[in-house]
Amino acid sequence: MAADPLPSWNEGAAKSAIVDFVTAVTAEGGADFVPTEARIATFDNDGTLWIEQPLYIQFAFALDRVKALAPQHPEWATTQPFKAVLDNDLSALLASGQEGLVEIMMASHAGNTTDEFAAIVTEWIGKARHPKFKRPYTELVYQPMLELIAFLRVNGFKTFIVSGGGIEFMRPWSQTIYGVPPEQVIGSSIKTKFDMRNGSPVLVRLPEIDFIDDKDGKPVAIQKFIGRRPIAAFGNSDGDLQMLQWTTAGSGRRLGVIVHHDDSEREYAYDRQSKIGQLNTALDDASAQKWVVVSMKSDWSRIFPEK
Amino acid sequence: MAADPLPSWNEGAAKSAIVDFVTAVTAEGGADFVPTEARIATFDNDGTLWIEQPLYIQFAFALDRVKALAPQHPEWATTQPFKAVLDNDLSALLASGQEGLVEIMMASHAGNTTDEFAAIVTEWIGKARHPKFKRPYTELVYQPMLELIAFLRVNGFKTFIVSGGGIEFMRPWSQTIYGVPPEQVIGSSIKTKFDMRNGSPVLVRLPEIDFIDDKDGKPVAIQKFIGRRPIAAFGNSDGDLQMLQWTTAGSGRRLGVIVHHDDSEREYAYDRQSKIGQLNTALDDASAQKWVVVSMKSDWSRIFPEK
Repeated sequence: MAADPLPSWNEGAAKSAIVDFVTAVTAEGGADFVPTEARIATFDNDGTLWIEQPLYIQFAFALDRVKALAPQHPEWATTQPFKAVLDNDLSALLASGQEGLVEIMMASHAGNTTDEFAAIVTEWIGKARHPKFKRPYTELVYQPMLELIAFLRVNGFKTFIVSGGGIEFMRPWSQTIYGVPPEQVIGSSIKTKFDMRNGSPVLVRLPEIDFIDDKDGKPVAIQKFIGRRPIAAFGNSDGDLQMLQWTTAGSGRRLGVIVHHDDSEREYAYDRQSKIGQLNTALDDASAQKWVVVSMKSDWSRIFPEK
Repeated sequence: MAADPLPSWNEGAAKSAIVDFVTAVTAEGGADFVPTEARIATFDNDGTLWIEQPLYIQFAFALDRVKALAPQHPEWATTQPFKAVLDNDLSALLASGQEGLVEIMMASHAGNTTDEFAAIVTEWIGKARHPKFKRPYTELVYQPMLELIAFLRVNGFKTFIVSGGGIEFMRPWSQTIYGVPPEQVIGSSIKTKFDMRNGSPVLVRLPEIDFIDDKDGKPVAIQKFIGRRPIAAFGNSDGDLQMLQWTTAGSGRRLGVIVHHDDSEREYAYDRQSKIGQLNTALDDASAQKWVVVSMKSDWSRIFPEK
């Protein structure tokens, strides 16, 4: 008997649905067979492949980056929303609203070249630790999802990340952590500008939003970057609703999966009321749409890779 | 002796430079070795992989499309720039300038869903014929470049198209003609919008420019879509200058190639003065930058595939 490709998945409806789907679309001559080149699978990242509580990891990066840059910006000591970050004053930070959030993201993500930014992310992610689990963020990826990505890849799938997170924030580590190369990472972006510095071409990151890869934006980005419709999509929040709709409305056999955070003991439990990773409409629609809802508590025997 | 992988390339400096480059970056243990995943090559399309004279093929599509749509737009019979198209009045069309051009592109490219547009392109490209060569456009691709793409691919390269042309205009045939799958096609785009029609999700093409993938835009798009710098780039015009600069300024061994249209007998001869595919600055810079300039006349034994 072959080894179980999904050892961290408990036997049950979710695991069966996933294995049955892969078996069906790879069975040559079968009614549901899909040729290799059309086996496109898209994965949300935050909350689907790695932890997103108590704060999106990229936002933790932004806050650390503001602190690191503060010596070059003495005015931040008295200017919101930066003062709130430097004071660790979460309520003042929240009071700065969407506008304040964008200011922090731009201050922490723009103004350098693409090469410089990749080096900054790489250095940060090697050192940062999760406040609760005290482990590097790159170890707070979901072991069952790592197995699933590998299982799909072995079965001829091309696996893409389609995240609301920053495209250049994910690329420096996506290959190492997920085995997903940079050209298969899709995310939100700021604008860049081609420039010459001392005779050498650079791409400068501008403090201007280019594209938000969330909700309606996900199918738009999938079409722009991939140019064909996935046959399987994996998400965990209402930010993935349209990606799930777009994927599973295609002809032939399709798979839509929602990772449900219902494990307060081993990770976090949140859904309809959460400010981060809110899962409400997609959860309501799952049954009618035949999307598979994965219970982290009962479907997964392990959450994170072993230390 | 192994068969020559580039049989339509005459022996000479251009062919040697290409073969030497591929040999060097694939020689394990060699000083110039590049691991497979970093072997990224980008190709311009119009004038580099297929014919672009006397008119960009996509513009021929746009003109045909305006004619096909004219019955639904009686007002076009008396409104410029549409009247000029319907009258085949090139000088009136040119008089409408950049603004007129954009109007024609939007009228011919927007207003349908992505699936509908792909079907329209597929139908058109199967029927359209080049005015001089009387062959389908998909046969007016350069045989030596087809061999080159295949040669790179066999040597572990991932080949991308990076074109000023429309991304969704190229995708319906890029796999068949070049062996380049849709997710490796990068081009100019209009915006799309996710919408629900009778309960089914669609992506609607809007009459609004999203991105122009030309000149400065090429390195920007390469970073956005691929997320790493190519080690080889192939172009034919000043629209490819920044892509060549960006590619060849990277560390390690690099290859920049310019296809020079100097064969008035078998194709067309044009460079510095041409309105289509103007090659001026990049030609001036080629020698100092060590870019390979390919003479279609003397480096290629054949231009197009045999009928």
